[in-house]
Amino acid sequence: MKFKAKEIADILGGTVDGDPEVTVTAFARIESGKPGAICFFANPKYEHYVYSCKSDIIIVNRTFVPKEAVTATLLRVDDAYAAVASLLDYVTAQKRSYRRYRGLRCRVRLSSKIGSKVYIGDFAYVGKKAEIGGFTKIYEHVYVGDGVKIGSKCIIYPGVRIYPGMVIGDNVIIHANAVIGSDGFGFAPLEDKSWKKIEHTGNVIVEDDVEIGANVCVDKSQMGSTVIRRGTKIDNLCQIAHNVEIGPDTVMASQSGIAGSSKIGSHCIIAGQVGVAGHLTIADDTTLGAQAGVLGNVKESGQVLMGSPAFPLKQYLRCYAAFKKAGK
Amino acid sequence: MKFKAKEIADILGGTVDGDPEVTVTAFARIESGKPGAICFFANPKYEHYVYSCKSDIIIVNRTFVPKEAVTATLLRVDDAYAAVASLLDYVTAQKRSYRRYRGLRCRVRLSSKIGSKVYIGDFAYVGKKAEIGGFTKIYEHVYVGDGVKIGSKCIIYPGVRIYPGMVIGDNVIIHANAVIGSDGFGFAPLEDKSWKKIEHTGNVIVEDDVEIGANVCVDKSQMGSTVIRRGTKIDNLCQIAHNVEIGPDTVMASQSGIAGSSKIGSHCIIAGQVGVAGHLTIADDTTLGAQAGVLGNVKESGQVLMGSPAFPLKQYLRCYAAFKKAGK
Amino acid sequence: MKFKAKEIADILGGTVDGDPEVTVTAFARIESGKPGAICFFANPKYEHYVYSCKSDIIIVNRTFVPKEAVTATLLRVDDAYAAVASLLDYVTAQKRSYRRYRGLRCRVRLSSKIGSKVYIGDFAYVGKKAEIGGFTKIYEHVYVGDGVKIGSKCIIYPGVRIYPGMVIGDNVIIHANAVIGSDGFGFAPLEDKSWKKIEHTGNVIVEDDVEIGANVCVDKSQMGSTVIRRGTKIDNLCQIAHNVEIGPDTVMASQSGIAGSSKIGSHCIIAGQVGVAGHLTIADDTTLGAQAGVLGNVKESGQVLMGSPAFPLKQYLRCYAAFKKAGK
Repeated sequence: MKFKAKEIADILGGTVDGDPEVTVTAFARIESGKPGAICFFANPKYEHYVYSCKSDIIIVNRTFVPKEAVTATLLRVDDAYAAVASLLDYVTAQKRSYRRYRGLRCRVRLSSKIGSKVYIGDFAYVGKKAEIGGFTKIYEHVYVGDGVKIGSKCIIYPGVRIYPGMVIGDNVIIHANAVIGSDGFGFAPLEDKSWKKIEHTGNVIVEDDVEIGANVCVDKSQMGSTVIRRGTKIDNLCQIAHNVEIGPDTVMASQSGIAGSSKIGSHCIIAGQVGVAGHLTIADDTTLGAQAGVLGNVKESGQVLMGSPAFPLKQYLRCYAAFKKAGK
Repeated sequence: MKFKAKEIADILGGTVDGDPEVTVTAFARIESGKPGAICFFANPKYEHYVYSCKSDIIIVNRTFVPKEAVTATLLRVDDAYAAVASLLDYVTAQKRSYRRYRGLRCRVRLSSKIGSKVYIGDFAYVGKKAEIGGFTKIYEHVYVGDGVKIGSKCIIYPGVRIYPGMVIGDNVIIHANAVIGSDGFGFAPLEDKSWKKIEHTGNVIVEDDVEIGANVCVDKSQMGSTVIRRGTKIDNLCQIAHNVEIGPDTVMASQSGIAGSSKIGSHCIIAGQVGVAGHLTIADDTTLGAQAGVLGNVKESGQVLMGSPAFPLKQYLRCYAAFKKAGK
Repeated sequence: MKFKAKEIADILGGTVDGDPEVTVTAFARIESGKPGAICFFANPKYEHYVYSCKSDIIIVNRTFVPKEAVTATLLRVDDAYAAVASLLDYVTAQKRSYRRYRGLRCRVRLSSKIGSKVYIGDFAYVGKKAEIGGFTKIYEHVYVGDGVKIGSKCIIYPGVRIYPGMVIGDNVIIHANAVIGSDGFGFAPLEDKSWKKIEHTGNVIVEDDVEIGANVCVDKSQMGSTVIRRGTKIDNLCQIAHNVEIGPDTVMASQSGIAGSSKIGSHCIIAGQVGVAGHLTIADDTTLGAQAGVLGNVKESGQVLMGSPAFPLKQYLRCYAAFKKAGK
């Protein structure tokens, strides 16, 4: 990136208070600003940094009145916090190019159908009869199995593995080394106490606007589909077992796991390292606190749960206070 | 897949009650049946779906007497539940082909020994003096280090990494992006409070009939071997540290971890997100409940444990009931 | 490896008590010694194994006086435990070769700068303007994005993904399938209850002498850097979120996770399956017990914490004893 203050003001609909020609090439946080960088100031707690900040530009609210001398050029906008998100968007969009590209060393099977302006990196493999929509970017080292369907404007980062027959919607982002479509963990006990594999012939459907983190695993179903519904966001290292349905618009933080056949409603917030047992239904708008373990259905929507087994947060905190007291 | 009702009856030893020529191309669950699909009905709770189901074939127990009109062709067998598992097996086996294949863009070092009818996908790498048994399938992007031995009839999914010198038995399945043979996590504290790496020169032995999930990590030992014993099944995202021994016939659900040098007995059931500390011995037939944390040896076999630190489940549930009561 | 007893004595500064010509080709633990192997005896509890051990060489302390007949050649050193670590080091260093190598099927973009004696394996990809220091080993299937900087004497194992713009120091080891630089998990809620992605334009800095385990994820920051400080060691399957800072010389066991913007001090010891919530500061020399969940700042250094939410270990153990008692 490389922007003059006046260019940024144009992008954000702001005004320049200082040198309109000053140029920045990087973002920085206000507490670690340096020459050539642009910072933003939104949280009043950080005001003292404004006066010592060495960045060349600081984005501030239009209403901000400095109490001391400021060396940086100030860029005044209606909402400094929102303006930064917009600027990050703008910069990212600038970097993204939609052009046809085939790595010298990729392999795309002839019977696959590839949309327009698709990027396929070196060492990527696209299997037979796979379909990839327009403007999608398949990074280096990605494996797209036979018959996989991927929508348009997706970003599939290096080393993602998509087993044969899986279905990915539009505008989906999948981070490096995530695995979509491994076998569900299903075994029947035999008389000699060994385990017989139950074959899984279903698939995984990832709907539009989903984001899946690095090293996430999503297992395919025994029959039917494991479904990640529209707009759901899944953080790194999560486990989504066979036949699970989750979302739409649910978020799930790192290292959480949902066991087989459970249904997680819409707009849920699942914190880190949470576990949900199998064959459960979790109501819409449920919040599960960090490290919660859910062993029963959650029928009433809008609850906040914690503990293992989990129960309502407020009660949990009182219980935990009593627990701590008992050890004094 | 594509089957007529009469063909399925032949495979399963059943009888057709309806149109023997009706053709299906997919499995479906009874609650989401659709034309062209085959369902099964085993759990009496789901009987009402039999009458509304739009699938063309439903597998039912021989003894089933419908209480209402059924539009689907019924396929009667001794045990509908077992029949479906058999049919899933049959379909999966049909899809599996044992033929020699070399991807155009794989690399197999000349000093390796490859058995008959082995599949090696594009971008797979097989190192020097590695040995791969007959009928094994090495998917695209797999890394097989120098001197690795892999048995026959294994399936190694895309992106699996097997460090040099590791040993894999027969009929082993390893899912995508699992790592076999990374260094154990061992460091000695130095006087300046930094850490000195302890080198690991041992290996990992994965015995016959083991299944290892996606993104699992199995570390090699310092000396000697980390051993996954025959028939053990490990779910996605599990951690098996250096010098661990586990199994035979133990199952371990997703996101669980076993710390260094612990021995897990045979026929144990380890639920999700369980942790077992290092240098412990866990008796045969132990069951560890979800999110349990085991900090001591488990000497008596057949116990069910929960909590962190873990203790017997029944007691745990009473304790937890008291804990919840204290917060009311 | 292949060594005579007298050669090992030279390496370790020890003396041979038995046949100086006897040859060994492997390490073994004293309890599972076999012909052709070398063992060590340091822990008095294992003395009975010395007399039954079938290994050809046993390393013992100079002061050891056998109480029974020993068939193995004894190799006497000042400190048997330290000697083994040295010997493991020696053997590992012997195997390591520093020579220029390019896999037949790697792809290295022309604008990258590669130091002397760098190994780049088959199917490895090195992006535009990337820089790799001398003596570094880039294993097969590694992805090094555009503009990445990697120092000298690093080992990057197969399948590691380093997103564009990340910075790796000297003597860094990264195990297979780890991901460095995936997007931070940041989304802003919109009025329709869907989530808008907040773009992350920062990077990850991994300082010198860091080791990162298999399948670890380190997210890049929104702006500025996620930083893994010098000498920090991170075990398999850990999560390091955006804008986290950790170390120097902190160790973090498997399956632990640090949420966004938290700062973990130096010389901390984080056990397995620990979670630290976002925007916290953890003081130097803190020890977090297995499965601890940290929800508040830790201001005083040197504490040992456990529980979820975590508090001091000693108190926790008393509380937990009371908790267990309540269920009797």
